[in-house]
Amino acid sequence: MKKHLLSIDDVTAGDIDALFETAAEMHDVQRRAVKKLPALRGRTVINLFFEDSTRTRSSFEIAGKWLSADVINLSAKGSSTSKGESLRDTVRTVTAMGIDGLVMRHSASGAAQQVSEWIDVPVINAGDGTHEHPTQALLDAYTLSRRLGPLEGRHVAIVGDLTHSRVFRSNVKSLTKLGARVTVVAPPTLMPSGIGTWSEEAGFETSYDLDAVLQGEHGTVDAVMMLRVQRERMSGGYFPSAREYTVGYGLTRDRLRCLAAGTPILHPGPMNRGLEISADAADAVDSVVLDQVSAGVAVRMAVLYHLLAGEDSQ
Amino acid sequence: MKKHLLSIDDVTAGDIDALFETAAEMHDVQRRAVKKLPALRGRTVINLFFEDSTRTRSSFEIAGKWLSADVINLSAKGSSTSKGESLRDTVRTVTAMGIDGLVMRHSASGAAQQVSEWIDVPVINAGDGTHEHPTQALLDAYTLSRRLGPLEGRHVAIVGDLTHSRVFRSNVKSLTKLGARVTVVAPPTLMPSGIGTWSEEAGFETSYDLDAVLQGEHGTVDAVMMLRVQRERMSGGYFPSAREYTVGYGLTRDRLRCLAAGTPILHPGPMNRGLEISADAADAVDSVVLDQVSAGVAVRMAVLYHLLAGEDSQ
Amino acid sequence: MKKHLLSIDDVTAGDIDALFETAAEMHDVQRRAVKKLPALRGRTVINLFFEDSTRTRSSFEIAGKWLSADVINLSAKGSSTSKGESLRDTVRTVTAMGIDGLVMRHSASGAAQQVSEWIDVPVINAGDGTHEHPTQALLDAYTLSRRLGPLEGRHVAIVGDLTHSRVFRSNVKSLTKLGARVTVVAPPTLMPSGIGTWSEEAGFETSYDLDAVLQGEHGTVDAVMMLRVQRERMSGGYFPSAREYTVGYGLTRDRLRCLAAGTPILHPGPMNRGLEISADAADAVDSVVLDQVSAGVAVRMAVLYHLLAGEDSQ
Repeated sequence: MKKHLLSIDDVTAGDIDALFETAAEMHDVQRRAVKKLPALRGRTVINLFFEDSTRTRSSFEIAGKWLSADVINLSAKGSSTSKGESLRDTVRTVTAMGIDGLVMRHSASGAAQQVSEWIDVPVINAGDGTHEHPTQALLDAYTLSRRLGPLEGRHVAIVGDLTHSRVFRSNVKSLTKLGARVTVVAPPTLMPSGIGTWSEEAGFETSYDLDAVLQGEHGTVDAVMMLRVQRERMSGGYFPSAREYTVGYGLTRDRLRCLAAGTPILHPGPMNRGLEISADAADAVDSVVLDQVSAGVAVRMAVLYHLLAGEDSQ
Repeated sequence: MKKHLLSIDDVTAGDIDALFETAAEMHDVQRRAVKKLPALRGRTVINLFFEDSTRTRSSFEIAGKWLSADVINLSAKGSSTSKGESLRDTVRTVTAMGIDGLVMRHSASGAAQQVSEWIDVPVINAGDGTHEHPTQALLDAYTLSRRLGPLEGRHVAIVGDLTHSRVFRSNVKSLTKLGARVTVVAPPTLMPSGIGTWSEEAGFETSYDLDAVLQGEHGTVDAVMMLRVQRERMSGGYFPSAREYTVGYGLTRDRLRCLAAGTPILHPGPMNRGLEISADAADAVDSVVLDQVSAGVAVRMAVLYHLLAGEDSQ
Repeated sequence: MKKHLLSIDDVTAGDIDALFETAAEMHDVQRRAVKKLPALRGRTVINLFFEDSTRTRSSFEIAGKWLSADVINLSAKGSSTSKGESLRDTVRTVTAMGIDGLVMRHSASGAAQQVSEWIDVPVINAGDGTHEHPTQALLDAYTLSRRLGPLEGRHVAIVGDLTHSRVFRSNVKSLTKLGARVTVVAPPTLMPSGIGTWSEEAGFETSYDLDAVLQGEHGTVDAVMMLRVQRERMSGGYFPSAREYTVGYGLTRDRLRCLAAGTPILHPGPMNRGLEISADAADAVDSVVLDQVSAGVAVRMAVLYHLLAGEDSQ
């Protein structure tokens, strides 16, 4: 496995298998009475978040602590960057304290890659702009594989605001890497430019028509992943409005009926109930939204373990 | 003991005795060189605070850490709720990570009760709107019982803004449950509506006249609990103004003289010196304000221990 | 060693030697595989920051955790002080929980001294107004002594906004205490009033002319410490402007050439690149800016160890 996890490009299918094997063990630990593993005792991980994210930050914090690491949270608010310090100086300063790994989120695409060139310790990208969010994609694939078995040949529909979604970008890469077929669905205004070339090269399909996709026009759908809509993008005269979005691209009660029983429904959260996902879908028997959250801790434990535990621990 | 601590209604007098017995042991540990107990090793507690409260949050954080739990702080600021997520989704997400207990504060009365119906782990109410703050009442009663011995038959005056006080509501319940007599004192504008019926049913007395109460009109006062005034309620033409409040309901130097030596003076903090409590009273020999703070950690350790430690630990 | 570390006045040259000896051991630990020492297990340290400081706060947090202490962060934002509580009540409350040490930063000069008179546990000043920042001065001297050997007779130039700098005040004291010669350099408008008397008594020199100092007018310069400029003081018609500041007092590429090879360049961070320090200087082979950060953790571990570890641990 590479030193950093900046993008799904950094892991091979074999790496993902190894991570999932470790995550499964972590997942089991997570359910037992004694939860703490000593693997990262004495190691220090910094959660450096330039964007707020209670969910992802606390998932990494719990993952680190369950491996006995010390986890230090640093938020950009009140940090030296607000005093005019450069990103490079900030991360080199943090690293100079003597830490063993850096988990970072930043609003700029490519920030994690850039940072990894400046410092010596493993960098884990917890979301950079509209670029990638690799641990989210790994936990999504892990959740799917626990439900569906091997993803080879499975067909996943990813639906929503593709233009602004790092979750989508990382998921397309990881799912195709694992041999799954992917169809992405979005209204024309939220479909990334250049997706035609990209989809041909990467081997996934695109559609503007959610109903056609759910009814099997691109092949039976084995899983549906709904993306979060940023409400602020649904106002001010832009198309679609929130209501139009729901009508065209929401996983409504009616659309739910198109899915075969046992078809997992995913959402990275936080959900806008009534917008991209109906309460019926969010709370359906086949909704795996909470499984994703639980898998998030296990997968992040696996990532921290593989990147930070020295050979002596492994 | 019940699974959750949402209200003083959730504990019997016997439960309170058991909690106090544990708290006394914790209190002793708190004073010794080695402070850490292994009871909650490997267990994870979330402090989920939708309202700021450095004091209560850090008291729970220290209590958890002294029991060797991992404690994760989540504040509503920057959380998913600010992104439109429902309270139910937020707490179910937090719980799905694999936690063992949830300490929560929320501005809505009844929020903790509601949350306890949605999730599987013990919920500890750290204050919900104007409803209840059960650990505050327990630490108050614990502090009193360390000073006065058994509270059966003792007479406690609770003074201040009763309408908005969850501390008052929880204290009336716990003190009467322990057999104490309670007289509550407030200006007419800060006396809750319907208190006549409530006080009859619950068996406590009410008064608008602090001086009369302190002079024994309702029986000798064995302890005085001053409540915090929200300054913002003392302005804008409302009665009473801050000055009128102090004249009528503040524990001034003069009123202090009405109390027999050894009468404990309580305040949940933070204190408005010069408003509801004079410096003379706050710093009096009989002020137990700091004892309350110290007891807070011990009592919260006891609560966490009884609710979260499995039978194997007990 | 005294109970508190409020000012460099609280430590003798012998104390500093002892601290540096401990820091050197910590520094070595910092570089090894197993980083955690058990010295403060079961002890609780509060980081009470009334001013934001990600850098100093996290340095103390890591230092405490590597000694196995529980470290609780409390920021003034959302704290009881914002609800009108007095500083005295806030710190006495925090202490009453049962903590073993208080690290505090406050915007008022003298705040740490004041607080130390109110509470029983060791207080470590992490910066009080324009007064002192003793651990910064200790880590600076430690960094210098690792590069230069004993500081006796060495000559250090401290350059920048002296009026507002607690780093300068603490450094002058510690460097002269260790036998170093100090020359301080600032524009007339940023030179503290009364510095003439002070410099005579304390035995350091002053200058308005950075070029003359670097060229050896006050003796060969063995180290240069650049101070951070608060940009907000460089606007609004005041002299100097940012540009004038750089021309007169910045460590530019040209001035860098005046320094002999091996002359350490220090900066407490965060740096304003292009203002008080050029990129050439910040990234020079002789820049020890990151060594300072690393030393910060080691020195703070030493301070926490000497002040908080009981005799049983030592």
